[in-house]
Amino acid sequence: MRRVALIAAGLTRFGIRQATYRELIQEAGKAAFDSNKNVSPKDIEGFVLSSVFPERSAFQSHVACLAAESLGVRPRKLFGRVENMCGSGIVAIRTAYTAIVTGLADLVMVVGAEKMNVPVPTEAALNMITGLDRDWEGSYGLAAPPMFALSAQAHAAKYGTNEEQLSMVSVKNHNHSKNNPYAHFQKGSTMEQVMCSRMISTPLRLFHCSTMSDGAAAAIFASEERAKGLTDKPIFITGTAQAAHGYAVANFHRDLSHWPALKEAANDAYAMAGIGPDDIDFAELHDCFSIAEIIAYEELGFCEKGEGGKFIEQGLSDYGGKVVVNPRGGLIGCGHPLGATGVAHATEIFLQMRGEAGPRQVPGAKIALSHTNSGPGEHHILIFEKGF
Amino acid sequence: MRRVALIAAGLTRFGIRQATYRELIQEAGKAAFDSNKNVSPKDIEGFVLSSVFPERSAFQSHVACLAAESLGVRPRKLFGRVENMCGSGIVAIRTAYTAIVTGLADLVMVVGAEKMNVPVPTEAALNMITGLDRDWEGSYGLAAPPMFALSAQAHAAKYGTNEEQLSMVSVKNHNHSKNNPYAHFQKGSTMEQVMCSRMISTPLRLFHCSTMSDGAAAAIFASEERAKGLTDKPIFITGTAQAAHGYAVANFHRDLSHWPALKEAANDAYAMAGIGPDDIDFAELHDCFSIAEIIAYEELGFCEKGEGGKFIEQGLSDYGGKVVVNPRGGLIGCGHPLGATGVAHATEIFLQMRGEAGPRQVPGAKIALSHTNSGPGEHHILIFEKGF
Repeated sequence: MRRVALIAAGLTRFGIRQATYRELIQEAGKAAFDSNKNVSPKDIEGFVLSSVFPERSAFQSHVACLAAESLGVRPRKLFGRVENMCGSGIVAIRTAYTAIVTGLADLVMVVGAEKMNVPVPTEAALNMITGLDRDWEGSYGLAAPPMFALSAQAHAAKYGTNEEQLSMVSVKNHNHSKNNPYAHFQKGSTMEQVMCSRMISTPLRLFHCSTMSDGAAAAIFASEERAKGLTDKPIFITGTAQAAHGYAVANFHRDLSHWPALKEAANDAYAMAGIGPDDIDFAELHDCFSIAEIIAYEELGFCEKGEGGKFIEQGLSDYGGKVVVNPRGGLIGCGHPLGATGVAHATEIFLQMRGEAGPRQVPGAKIALSHTNSGPGEHHILIFEKGF
Repeated sequence: MRRVALIAAGLTRFGIRQATYRELIQEAGKAAFDSNKNVSPKDIEGFVLSSVFPERSAFQSHVACLAAESLGVRPRKLFGRVENMCGSGIVAIRTAYTAIVTGLADLVMVVGAEKMNVPVPTEAALNMITGLDRDWEGSYGLAAPPMFALSAQAHAAKYGTNEEQLSMVSVKNHNHSKNNPYAHFQKGSTMEQVMCSRMISTPLRLFHCSTMSDGAAAAIFASEERAKGLTDKPIFITGTAQAAHGYAVANFHRDLSHWPALKEAANDAYAMAGIGPDDIDFAELHDCFSIAEIIAYEELGFCEKGEGGKFIEQGLSDYGGKVVVNPRGGLIGCGHPLGATGVAHATEIFLQMRGEAGPRQVPGAKIALSHTNSGPGEHHILIFEKGF
């Protein structure tokens, strides 16, 4: 089977940006081309865009080739836009991956972009509600924060996970994003700040939540053969999996402290890569809310089930611990422009594997895991390995 | 390389439907399961949804797993929503195809769905405008009808294609859809009706245009190995290609009577399948406007460039001619629920190959081509061959 390499990557600063949807795409795309001068827009054969609701935030559908054209790319072999709410970025990378493995294209660009902040703030909040089941849950008030708060409450009840442990995730990720000039938040945070921030949905406080940030990220993938002429530092995708357990929380979630679909996807991805959780040097995990990172430690096998709170408390998910989780600052530190997030993971993996991550460099980084979720019931995983 | 088979398919009636977005999905999904009693929802491993703007028409994003759950499907291996405006359906089928070839899943369901008619008709028209480049063209009035009218004018000026020839496409497709109980229009039409219908964008009249129809379609694909236990009538995907020439009409279209991306995609797909245009028994072509079918005859190689008008005039695209084009009635006869259209092509190919198309059966159908466009500059092709 053909191997697939990540050969270029770049992103915009995430935050409340004045840039339009198209300008965000151009900024990230240019950064990706700047990261590898052997690749130019005219070489790109395939183009996949990850974006959730440009129809609402930019009054624009039919976005894949619009984005490609904005970058001077003419996709001769493959194109399309992918959406799977917060996890879209990894789904888009998988589309590029399978196309390259199948031989439909050799050089595919993936861009993730989202304009979250729109002129009317209530409209921005309503856009987020489109991600919930409108008929059964969204229109009754189940937005993302209460959905994940239910997980946090269940985890607290069953395993004793406490507010201090939730807050340690936020402090860690804010402290990581302090070293990331592309992050929304670059000032760090203290336990006091996090634990005194206002309550959003019990027990999740403001600083336990990722933010409405605009942003875009871009990555270029090549078949192993094609990559040879373009870089001497290929980073290979060696495992990938998805699993869904369900959509509406009311329909399927007996016990929200367990996310069986994440465990299932992780096991499939590990098996495909021929590795286990102990082999991961660093992980980009989907900390949309701090509880999500804690549950991910467990389902990914970094620690035993129920031990996620202790894992962060003992510093095992930080530099010098067992696995560095979210070195760029995660969604809590960097912000969460939905379609961009999974692609932004790849930009961090690109820098870390090449030893170019500066003050946030993970020493000896060779194997990385990228995880996004689209709610507690849908999970997406990629495993990357340094090929040089 | 693993082969991929179409093993089940079904659809809703297209039209102005009272059904909600979710109900359309359920209706089409049930029809697909009804078409092959060896496959049940619990067997499906992957789920791809093709849909363009549910964010606007159903206030719902994050639609793939919502659709899956509505059908009792839990995608254990693969899921996501695909959007590429009018051509989305084929892009979704390609996603299922590449995933199966790569080995990420063995049994993948593709559903295409669109709710076009919303309570406020002006809102429905505005939704369509999201498919144009808002910044450069959409907000200046370039909707789909004038864009294709420019192609019709260029083709008339260069090749003498006339209004009678454009109208013959509409009459043919309406006469085909008369035999299709799932079509929006089932009354046939006459040359007089078509040529006296009101002008939409010169020279395109009302009956030269496809319509705003609600609808959904579903198809199930399996690896060859898995298909063996599920059907003795597999239909294989033997070729597929996409090509884009550009997005904004102003940016790239020197001569709108030529669609080079369609020619490029067709040649790639023929090469992959090891066939030529003469081998095609019937074709599902994207007649969003009658001129689109005429130009497609040419770029697909069914006739010489510029001879498309004569091709329909001589009856060569009808039963008894060279290739039966749009036996189910095309977009003009059936309607065009954007995300559903490319998947609806597969439902017709499923019936025709099995000899179950009733009064519209193409005799001896063995090889079929499915083509969708997303405007004159973006084209998508699948080639199917009867495997029994």
